[in-house]
Formats: sequence, C-alpha cells, structure tokens
Amino acid sequence: MAEPGVTAVLLVSGPDQKGLVAAVSDFIYRHGGNIRTADQHTDFEQRLFLQRVEWELAGFDLPRDGIADTFRPLAERFGMSFDVRFSDHVPRVAIFVSRLDHCLQDLLWRFRSGELPAEVPLVISNHPDLRALAGSFGVNYYVHPVTLETKAVEEEAMLARLRAEKVDLVVLARYMQVLSDRFVAAWPNRMINIHHSFLPAFAGARPHHQAYARGVKVIGATAHYVTSDLDEGPIIEQDVARVSHRDSVHDLVRKGRDLEKVVLARAVNLHLRHRVLVYGNKTVVFE
Amino acid sequence: MAEPGVTAVLLVSGPDQKGLVAAVSDFIYRHGGNIRTADQHTDFEQRLFLQRVEWELAGFDLPRDGIADTFRPLAERFGMSFDVRFSDHVPRVAIFVSRLDHCLQDLLWRFRSGELPAEVPLVISNHPDLRALAGSFGVNYYVHPVTLETKAVEEEAMLARLRAEKVDLVVLARYMQVLSDRFVAAWPNRMINIHHSFLPAFAGARPHHQAYARGVKVIGATAHYVTSDLDEGPIIEQDVARVSHRDSVHDLVRKGRDLEKVVLARAVNLHLRHRVLVYGNKTVVFE
Amino acid sequence: MAEPGVTAVLLVSGPDQKGLVAAVSDFIYRHGGNIRTADQHTDFEQRLFLQRVEWELAGFDLPRDGIADTFRPLAERFGMSFDVRFSDHVPRVAIFVSRLDHCLQDLLWRFRSGELPAEVPLVISNHPDLRALAGSFGVNYYVHPVTLETKAVEEEAMLARLRAEKVDLVVLARYMQVLSDRFVAAWPNRMINIHHSFLPAFAGARPHHQAYARGVKVIGATAHYVTSDLDEGPIIEQDVARVSHRDSVHDLVRKGRDLEKVVLARAVNLHLRHRVLVYGNKTVVFE
Amino acid sequence: MAEPGVTAVLLVSGPDQKGLVAAVSDFIYRHGGNIRTADQHTDFEQRLFLQRVEWELAGFDLPRDGIADTFRPLAERFGMSFDVRFSDHVPRVAIFVSRLDHCLQDLLWRFRSGELPAEVPLVISNHPDLRALAGSFGVNYYVHPVTLETKAVEEEAMLARLRAEKVDLVVLARYMQVLSDRFVAAWPNRMINIHHSFLPAFAGARPHHQAYARGVKVIGATAHYVTSDLDEGPIIEQDVARVSHRDSVHDLVRKGRDLEKVVLARAVNLHLRHRVLVYGNKTVVFE
Repeated sequence: MAEPGVTAVLLVSGPDQKGLVAAVSDFIYRHGGNIRTADQHTDFEQRLFLQRVEWELAGFDLPRDGIADTFRPLAERFGMSFDVRFSDHVPRVAIFVSRLDHCLQDLLWRFRSGELPAEVPLVISNHPDLRALAGSFGVNYYVHPVTLETKAVEEEAMLARLRAEKVDLVVLARYMQVLSDRFVAAWPNRMINIHHSFLPAFAGARPHHQAYARGVKVIGATAHYVTSDLDEGPIIEQDVARVSHRDSVHDLVRKGRDLEKVVLARAVNLHLRHRVLVYGNKTVVFE
Repeated sequence: MAEPGVTAVLLVSGPDQKGLVAAVSDFIYRHGGNIRTADQHTDFEQRLFLQRVEWELAGFDLPRDGIADTFRPLAERFGMSFDVRFSDHVPRVAIFVSRLDHCLQDLLWRFRSGELPAEVPLVISNHPDLRALAGSFGVNYYVHPVTLETKAVEEEAMLARLRAEKVDLVVLARYMQVLSDRFVAAWPNRMINIHHSFLPAFAGARPHHQAYARGVKVIGATAHYVTSDLDEGPIIEQDVARVSHRDSVHDLVRKGRDLEKVVLARAVNLHLRHRVLVYGNKTVVFE
Repeated sequence: MAEPGVTAVLLVSGPDQKGLVAAVSDFIYRHGGNIRTADQHTDFEQRLFLQRVEWELAGFDLPRDGIADTFRPLAERFGMSFDVRFSDHVPRVAIFVSRLDHCLQDLLWRFRSGELPAEVPLVISNHPDLRALAGSFGVNYYVHPVTLETKAVEEEAMLARLRAEKVDLVVLARYMQVLSDRFVAAWPNRMINIHHSFLPAFAGARPHHQAYARGVKVIGATAHYVTSDLDEGPIIEQDVARVSHRDSVHDLVRKGRDLEKVVLARAVNLHLRHRVLVYGNKTVVFE
Repeated sequence: MAEPGVTAVLLVSGPDQKGLVAAVSDFIYRHGGNIRTADQHTDFEQRLFLQRVEWELAGFDLPRDGIADTFRPLAERFGMSFDVRFSDHVPRVAIFVSRLDHCLQDLLWRFRSGELPAEVPLVISNHPDLRALAGSFGVNYYVHPVTLETKAVEEEAMLARLRAEKVDLVVLARYMQVLSDRFVAAWPNRMINIHHSFLPAFAGARPHHQAYARGVKVIGATAHYVTSDLDEGPIIEQDVARVSHRDSVHDLVRKGRDLEKVVLARAVNLHLRHRVLVYGNKTVVFE
C-alpha cells in the first residue's frame, strides 16, 4: 500500500502521433491512478512528443516495481522511450566547488531546509578552502587537487567516490576545473553547471571581465547540463540583472553572485522534481 | 472536411476526480483528433479541475456543430461545464477609450498586423478626440458622452450598438468612465480593463500620483476582467518597471504607458486564444 | 595622514538655491580633496535639494574631526543640514529575527564575506530557534521573549543591550513582533525592515496568503525604514517575481524567500554605504 | 532673455583631476545659473572624468552663443573636451526602415505625442512598403533600393538628402541593409541601431532563429551606436524577456518586437536628451 501523498512521475518522449495522450492517461486511469498534473510538449519541426504525468500512488493497483514492465508494451507500440520516478525517492547529490563559497553555502542551506528535495553526502573540491563550510552543514568534504599530471588519476578516484556514494546528480557550483570528456560522459543529463553569464554570450573564462569590457547593460547567469562541449550544453535556466556604467567589475561579480545562486538553485530544483526533459541540445522545462 | 491547420479548443471545468484526463483525451482520440496541446490545472483546496485541450480538426470525424452535443453526456457524467471554440472563428472586439491614445493605437496596430486574432468593428468613446486615429485604421468611432443624467440612456445605446455589431469582447483601453453594474453584467468574463498600477496597490483614481506620493521603487500595470467591484475583478496579467527618486509623476506616467500597452495586449491575446479560464475571482492562464 | 583609499562622505539637504553645488564642491577643492562621486537630487515641488559627495581623504588638508566644524558656517549660510561619514568607519549592526532563518543566514554570510561593510555584534530574537545558526558565524544570540506583560521590560532590556554594543543600525530580518513606538523612535532612519509584499499592497499579516487569494501574477518584497506607522515607512528597495496559477501559497513563500534575501541585503548595503537620504516619507537612493 | 524653463546642458570629458567639479559648478554659479541636475562618472582605470550638468538659462548672464567661448579657457586648462546643448533646440531625426513596421510606427507615435523631443522630416527605406504608414504621420518617405551595383550611388544620394534636411540623428529601425564604412563614418555617435538580441549573443543575421536553436530561456534586444564593426558599437540600452520551450521562432519574433520597440525608444530618448556620453567602445548613460 502506497503512502498517502506519494506520487509517481512518468516521463515519455517519442514521435508525435495520434492517441498518445489518450493512451498514457488511459493507462493511469485503468490502474486507478489520480493524475495530479500532466504536461506535454510537441516540437512540430521534429515531430517529437514529450510528456510528464504525475499521479497519486494511493489507490493505484500496480506495485511500484511493476509499473515500468506493465507500461512497456504500450511504450513500444508508440515507439516511445520512458522513465518512471517516485516522489519519495530521495536523490543523492554531489557538489563540486573550488574556492568561491556563495553557491555552496546557498545550496547547502536549501538542501538542509528541505527546499531542495535531496541529500548531499559529499562535497568535492580541488582546494581545501571550503572544508569548514561543508562541515558546518555536516557534509563530508574531499579534496582532489587536479594538475595536468594527476587529472586522469584524480578523476578516476572521484568517479569511484561518486559511485560508492550512489550519487544521482553532480552539481558544479563554480567548480573551476574542466572535466574530461570521459568524466562528463558518465553523467549524461545528470551534471549541472552554473556559468556566470547569459550564454551564449561570454562563454569561457572571466565572463564578468568580458561583460565589463563590452559595456553591456545587462548581465546574466546560466545553468545547463554539462556536455563535452564546454558551455554548450542544454540550458535549463537563465536570469539577468541590470547594470550600468557605475558598476565596476567588482560590482558585476557581486551582482552576479546573487544571480548564480538563484539560477543554479532553480535548475537543481527543477531537475530533482523531474521537470526537465532533454532532447537534442535543448530542454523542455515543465514548471 | 476541415481546413488544414484549423484547431478546436475544449475548455472544461468541474470537480476533480479520477479519469477526467483519460476521458477527455480518449474522446478526442476515438474521433480521430490529434491533440496539439493539453493543459490542466487542479486547485487542490477547492478540488476543482480545469482543462484546455486543443486538437487539429483535420481528420476529426465529428462535424463542428456536433462536437458539443457528442461531448455533453461525458461532461454530465463528470459534472463538468465546458465550452468549444474554433481557431478560425474571428472574434469581434469593441475598444472603449477616452482621451489617451497610447493603448488604442497600440491595439489597433496589433489587430491590423494580425498579432491579435480578431476584428475591431468599432471604437466607442466619451470624447471625440481619437476619431482620426481610429479612422486611420479604418475603424468606426462612436462618441457617447456620459453625464449623470445621460448615463442610463447612453449605456443602453452602447449596448444596442455592441449587440448590433455582434461584439464578443469589450476592451477598456484607458476608458475613464465607470460603467454601471447592469452594463458590466452583460459582459461576464468578456470585458477587459487595463489599470495603471500593480493591483491591489493604488486602486482607484490617479494611481501614478499615489505611487509617487508613496515613494515606491516599482510601478506596474494590471489587466483584469471587469466586475461590479471596481478594480477588483480577476487578474489576467501584470507587469512592473523600476522607478527611482529621479522619476517625476510625469516620468511614471511615461513609463506606465509602455507597461499598459504590453500588459493589455498580452491579456487580450490570451483571451482571444482561449487561454484564460476564470474561477472564483481568479484566472488560470494556460500560456 | 589619511590612509590611501579612505574617503569622506558628505550628505547635505536643504532648500534649493543657486550656488549650492558650487559652494560644496569649492569647499572640498579648496581643502585639497579629490571628488570621487557627486550625486544630487532636487525635489522641485518641495524646492528641496539633497546631495551626496564622496572624496578621497588622501591630500585633504583638514583633519577628520575638523571637517564638520569648518563646513558648518557654509551650511548655515544656505540653511542646510548635513552629516559627515568616513568609509573606514565600521558600523555595528544588530539583527532581529524570529523563527525563519533565510534572511539571517543570508545576511550573516554577506557580512562575513565582506560584501556588507559592517560588524554584527549580536542577534536578538523572541525565540531560541536560531541560536546555533548565529553561533556558527560566531555571533552572540540573545533571546527576549515578548508577551503583552513583558513587552515594556524586554524592550528596555533590548535597548540597553543595543546601546551597550554601540549599535548603529537595527535590521529586522523577518522579526515577527511589533515594536513599540517608543522603541522605534530610538532608531530614526536607522531601523530597516523587510516586508514580504510589494507595499503598499498586502500590508499587514500573511501577505503571501493575501496575494494567493487575490490571484496576482506578480509578488514582491519591500525593504523600508521602520516608523511608528506599521508597513508605512520610507521605502528603500523593492523587487518582484512572476507567479502563476500553478503556484500554491507554499510556492509563493518559497519564491518570496529569494526576493526577501536580496531586497533586504541591497537595502542594508545602500544604507551602510551612506547612499540613502530620507525626506518626508520617501527616500533618495544614490546608487 | 531666455524663455522660462529652457536649460543648457554642458557635456564634459577629460583626464580626472582635482578641482574639475568645483571649476565647472563655479563657472555656472558665477554667471547666475541654477543647476537642475549634475551627474558625473569617473572611470578610475582610465583616469577619465565625464560630466553632464544642466542649468536654467533664466537668469544666466551669458548669451547662448557666448557660453562655449567663455567656457573654453577653463576647459583647456583642464584638458577637457566639451559640448553645449540647449533644451529648446529641436533635433531632426531620420528613420531608416526596410519592411517591418513595428519600430517605425512606435517611434512615429512617440515623436508625434511629444514623448520623444525631436522632429522627423523623413523616413528612408530600401523598400516602398511603409510609405503609407509614414504618410499617415505626415512624414516624407524616400525609397533608396540598394543593390551591389547601386550601393555607392544610393548612399551618396541618401547622404545628400540627410544633409539637405539638416538631420542630427539617424535611427535604424530594423533597417536590413549594411551601410558602408564611409556612410557610417559620417554619423559618429549619431546613428543608433536596434539589434534583436542581447548582444554580444547572436550577432549577425536571424538572431531569433539562432536563439531558438540554442534553446535559451531569455531573449533580448540591444540599441547601440553604429560603428564600422557590425553589431559591435557602444551599447546604449538592452532589455530581455523570458521565453520557454513553448515558444516557437514565431513567438520569439513576436516577443522580440515588444522589446525592440521599447529598447530603441529608450535609447533614442536618452540620446535626444543629451544623456549618453561615449568613450572607447562604451557609453555612460546619465538617466
């Protein structure tokens, strides 16, 4: 018997065709599910259909581990890929940082307060600086200094650690090292980075200095999934703030911090609540 | 045979219960409809379910005028009220103005360019000032000066005119007269007003002067359906702009104009595309 | 000899008249000061002039404690009131909280990081809940539970504590008690409150519940100086966020937290950098 | 004798040094001027000082055409360049368009209403499409179709026309031709373009299509002075709007139109009110 309030989330994508919505909602209804929210999107250029349905497990007549198997024939008939998640599953998140602490402390506060629905078993850094901060939230902190020589070895060690901790999601919270393609490939659509500009403007290093030099009147921050193309992965969330000639680079950095915190937190929240679907290099965000 | 690209929109509301989504989507599928978008919202406090489904008429096996009758038994089974609209129906809009022209000229431009999908057969005003503007867009302009003595008579004349022109929607584009309850009651959820403040702040007269006196750092505009409670109807859309001590009342008025234009245009657009559902004193806006 | 980089700030207000700007800038120039920024505002309705001038102390030929006396005759000639501040003075700030921790932890982080240029010798609360949080930043935490009977006594004790700690500014960071007029009167333009709505909308209790009931599409937060009129003091800063029918009261509270943090931090920062001048019930903010 | 309310604006720039503010304000005071606003900015990296002072001509004891000559020795002493403008001078603006009419009709409305303080003697286009629109505002419309062969000749003809009409400012209101370096060089800091992206993102052609392909969550518009580097000139104003996966390219274009209109209008307004100073490739905007 399911706990009251627990929900299942079904994420579906495949070629657009008649009857998809009816088939999915009928499947849930026939098994006694009460749909709480249903969102869908069709990319008409690519004839691609994406859907997210969330329903209450209370009264649903399939056991959790039977849902996927029961749904599979229907999915295959329509050529859809799908995924099933449960709202009482608590994901495990690893946060990567370097020396800047604003995103780390903001995220740890949000996790502890329950705003972000996940556990943080560990923080990984290439510097020892933020150990005390992690410690004040009771989170383990591991230092993996990365140099050209040690990169392969350290990445292997980090991967082992993440696997040992059964990490579901990696969050790069102003982590200043570029991870290898091999490392990135292990976390497809499960590694989120915050970049301190409104991408694609000011990709690469020191975006605030670039923004200052260009004299823009708006700065931004971008949270995106990490792919092997640096700063080119699917964008989850962006936001901006006004600046003027009065703002020095130092002011841009300060205003940027507030943007980075909220943009990264929103993206992590959307991901953890199974509201982000990726296709091609874009995201569908069912807010 | 339906024209290619034409869609039907079904708007549904009623008590939340299992099987609603499945029943509606199954109805459309069984009759050969391809759903383009489906949005729903459940107000869990009130156990109220609201849905908007849009599907292509091409291939749908019911004639337009048979859809409502065929759907009715299903709606009655679930205790739902519903409405059917068609994307190729061109609604008829009357615009009410007084002396300020910014919203009028903005709306007329948007109607002419096709951005707003409707016809404007007439503009009504209590002043003759904007006749030439309406004329430059080829729109008839009628002056109904309203005084305490003439109000009842003029309103009756305006109502007759609106009926004769088969008007579907009335837009108050900075119309400065208060319409009687009787007049308002003839246009339930079909009369949109723009108020030049972020309601509920600064309801009533001269909101920019009130805002200036209060020293706010943000001003706004609100588009809402008109009800018998002045400035209290269901809000469709709001937006804001930053101001500072440097802004005089004149500056607030100027910045306010740009807000009013876009907020009113967005609200009218959402209404005309059947994306606004009203319940209680609130709106659900399926963007 | 002044440290390099230290600046003096002169805040001036009085009746608008010719020669004011020239007199002030000439005063600074004659004594060897290099003006870094000069801002002024004239309220033409009230014929009131307000100015903020900041200049480098390096090379200035007056000792710090001689500046006010030397400037006074000039101020008196023009009927101006004035104030002199120094950038290397570190103000002392007391934070008042109740049970919600988001503003407190955000502020303490900003003070510790140096973003907010002040010291926080103490946190005062009517609840013991946030003692550990203050402690993790090394800040003393005092509990003053306030009931109808104890209010006068507790307020006296709090005042004594603030005086003993030589506090310059009191920040109410979601402090849920209403302070007496007598207490408030002791901190004219030196007590900042954060209210979780875009005032004047939703003054009073439970603004998010009010906003939800009204169905607004935008929520806000307001930082203002505290006066004896609850939620009516001079507004320093406001900001807003979009919401929709999908947002529950819980979501408004969550989105509101992010607003409250940044709006309060910005207001405190502006105050501490001597950028806010109050006149009547309004502020001039020289950003 | 100067008309009441008329003001003079002095724009000054040069190497930062002591006494500049005092010298300028003293100059105005000695000649009987009452300063209405004074703004200044120092770029400390480049040790560059920029100032804008506006004062009432009523009571000023220099004739208009004597101000520059009288001020020149002072400017030379400090190595400053400067410019004097008068608020009752009505600048003459030429608007360049192609086929899209939204910016043109928005600008013409703002000029006619007096919001933008200038005259528009002519509109120039490479297409005949918008002749009627210009005509409805009583503005002459000239077609200069540009091909590879005719470009030099047509540009010469356009330049002649602009000179004959004593044009002060050229506004490219979605003009789709690239003007030659020679043409651009004739309008240094006097030609404003609107680009439909938040530059430097999506420079070049079809920015909305680029934005759609990249999957950004924010789109923008940028008004900038035109230089020989396409889309690289000094930015005057930018603004953004949120978009989501639901927005097609067509929706981005529609949302972009509202951005382009207000961003361009704000930039033109700031320029016409002498509030924009250019240095290097950046602007100082004294709002």
